[in-house]
Amino acid sequence: MELQTPRGMRDFMPDQMTARKKVISVVERLFKSYGYEPFDTPALELMETLMVKCGDETNKQIYRVEDGKLGMRFDLTVPLARVVASDSTISKPFKRYCIDKVWRREEPQKGRYREFLQADIDVIGSSGMECEAELLACASECLKALGFKKFSVKVNNRKILDSVIKRIGITSKPEAVFRVLDKLEKTGEGAVRDELLKAGLDKTETDELMSAITEKGNNESRLKAADNLGGKDGADELRYMIELCKEYGIDVSVDLSLVRGLDYYTGPVFEISAGEGIGSIAGGGRYDDLIETYSGQNVPAVGISLGIERIMALLDGDEFKGAVDVYIATVKPELYGNSIKVANELRSYGLNVQIDLMKRNLRKQFEYVNSKNIGYIGVIGPKEVKEKTITLRDLKTGEEKAVTPKQAADIIKS
Amino acid sequence: MELQTPRGMRDFMPDQMTARKKVISVVERLFKSYGYEPFDTPALELMETLMVKCGDETNKQIYRVEDGKLGMRFDLTVPLARVVASDSTISKPFKRYCIDKVWRREEPQKGRYREFLQADIDVIGSSGMECEAELLACASECLKALGFKKFSVKVNNRKILDSVIKRIGITSKPEAVFRVLDKLEKTGEGAVRDELLKAGLDKTETDELMSAITEKGNNESRLKAADNLGGKDGADELRYMIELCKEYGIDVSVDLSLVRGLDYYTGPVFEISAGEGIGSIAGGGRYDDLIETYSGQNVPAVGISLGIERIMALLDGDEFKGAVDVYIATVKPELYGNSIKVANELRSYGLNVQIDLMKRNLRKQFEYVNSKNIGYIGVIGPKEVKEKTITLRDLKTGEEKAVTPKQAADIIKS
Repeated sequence: MELQTPRGMRDFMPDQMTARKKVISVVERLFKSYGYEPFDTPALELMETLMVKCGDETNKQIYRVEDGKLGMRFDLTVPLARVVASDSTISKPFKRYCIDKVWRREEPQKGRYREFLQADIDVIGSSGMECEAELLACASECLKALGFKKFSVKVNNRKILDSVIKRIGITSKPEAVFRVLDKLEKTGEGAVRDELLKAGLDKTETDELMSAITEKGNNESRLKAADNLGGKDGADELRYMIELCKEYGIDVSVDLSLVRGLDYYTGPVFEISAGEGIGSIAGGGRYDDLIETYSGQNVPAVGISLGIERIMALLDGDEFKGAVDVYIATVKPELYGNSIKVANELRSYGLNVQIDLMKRNLRKQFEYVNSKNIGYIGVIGPKEVKEKTITLRDLKTGEEKAVTPKQAADIIKS
Repeated sequence: MELQTPRGMRDFMPDQMTARKKVISVVERLFKSYGYEPFDTPALELMETLMVKCGDETNKQIYRVEDGKLGMRFDLTVPLARVVASDSTISKPFKRYCIDKVWRREEPQKGRYREFLQADIDVIGSSGMECEAELLACASECLKALGFKKFSVKVNNRKILDSVIKRIGITSKPEAVFRVLDKLEKTGEGAVRDELLKAGLDKTETDELMSAITEKGNNESRLKAADNLGGKDGADELRYMIELCKEYGIDVSVDLSLVRGLDYYTGPVFEISAGEGIGSIAGGGRYDDLIETYSGQNVPAVGISLGIERIMALLDGDEFKGAVDVYIATVKPELYGNSIKVANELRSYGLNVQIDLMKRNLRKQFEYVNSKNIGYIGVIGPKEVKEKTITLRDLKTGEEKAVTPKQAADIIKS
């Protein structure tokens, strides 16, 4: 019988999972510190819930369940919108975080999986740029805490793009234009120009659009270009957002070509990347219309999502130690009760402790420990029992000494 | 449009989810302290993986995905068995924990959901009773740490039941007999007797079986009854397990009627309940044959599962506070930058802090905080900015005083 995971899905063995859990716990701690609260929805949603505002491409990626009545969630935003739309008594702003799995039936490739983690924070019920600034601050703190030293924050406003498109008089579907612009960084100006012409823009429209979105210079000169093309409302929102970001100590740079794929964004969009050519490790934006499509009531909303899979790929695995701190080896089976007692004492000091479960001799126990990512071994023999010590060996240095369990805990923790 | 979750599935709002996360984190900490390591598999498995050793009833409960090629996992044991069977190089014993969702399409009822959490620890690769004792010790520590003061641990051994059935000469399918015995606590002796007769046992067989499994007296007298009916091997395993459990300070009681539903158990089975009539909150057993059905190689295995949903239902929700520690209220929009700085300082002391994101006046900010489960509010006005303090109000007592952010953090944490 073939033993495998479904295509594009992964098992995580203990060392990998320990590393993932450490990243998740750093992110979760910071999400909470900014006052975002945990919140959970089912893995499955009614298909009709998922279909709202989901384009053809996303539709094709939904895993159908129970003859297509249900589907597996493809993001964490749609379930959030459903809950907020269904209960108008929730206090606003509603700030929630969610770090959990989503499923998309797309072609697997390097770094892209059919089951993957999203880590989202969202603010529901406020249209103030205070939200955008806080989301960017919180995401940046997460990346710093994870060890990223350099990263850049790009912002744009869908309102600017909308105005520019209107002003220039482009008659093609704005979504089609967005989709082309979204590829600027990947394909370069020439290719985008060609695609815009193919999408139905004439040469003048293409030139005007390209010159607006590729305006060089500092933030203010780019925002001025937006003003001049009719995008002053959107530009003013970004000006205020940038000012608030400064209070948090965050530099953002305006990039008028930034689109972000998702169809439901209506205002500011943003993206954080960890360096040239690495691509984004966090992104999000404002989606003020999504909840209205469910409930008919307008409720502003904005969120940011950290790319946990991308982050895991960029972090050096060596930084993480395994989940087991120390193994207590028993010299003779008769001393097993002593090993249990020492192990329990070490656990009470907060250590993660394994003991022998197979009546193995000492050599076999050492072999087992060496096959695993465990830093210390503590030996219990007749002498140790008599002296109420353990012989603690540091498996990296080979150093060995007789210590009390409390001393052992202090050494292992330090 | 109707906004609802799929039948039998639930949303968890922040206060509920905070309570669930606290329970999970207690359990996870103790699982790790006993040397179990995190491990994860996909929500979906190939249908052929799930169908191995799954009875008709379970089969009906599997959510089919992608035209029945895939299914959603119905427990955490089958995926574990698949992984261990597929990789013979994994060091043994392999000790893993997993706290995650599983899905069963069964009729929802009070306390029974179609999506629910399991919290499992398993030891793969050791046939020693040391494993059973450690699993029971770890599960008991979890329950104690969660505040359960009284609970009882029952153990039995499938080997005893097998021997008794063989010795008595029962020719009906042993599984059918197990299924009837499993109902003893629920339906009482009379009903079980009737069902056994219906299942094809004659009166003598029924009498012998019932007298064996309802043997009163202490553990040893019950184990003696097992010896006398041919179950000495299984009884001796329990004797040794009971002795090891004493080393951990755990009292277990032998219950020869304990079956535990799952078809794959082969040795000791156990169950922990929190009191009379409440039913079990943890249970498990040895399943030495499961991995062999995948790989052809015999690998012994044993595990225990904590019933997180049952535990949540039994715990008093009032013990849990919300996820937000303090809200920083801004008297005038011009002071927003100061609020950001104070909030960030409080975050650096480990507190979870919300600030205003909607430019609300002070009254509205207080209304918001009162609508939520937040214990403290810190006010920032011109006076506070000048004096580098915040006016901290304890919302339970109404007490208010001017303190530095550091002092505020100490008060809130204590």
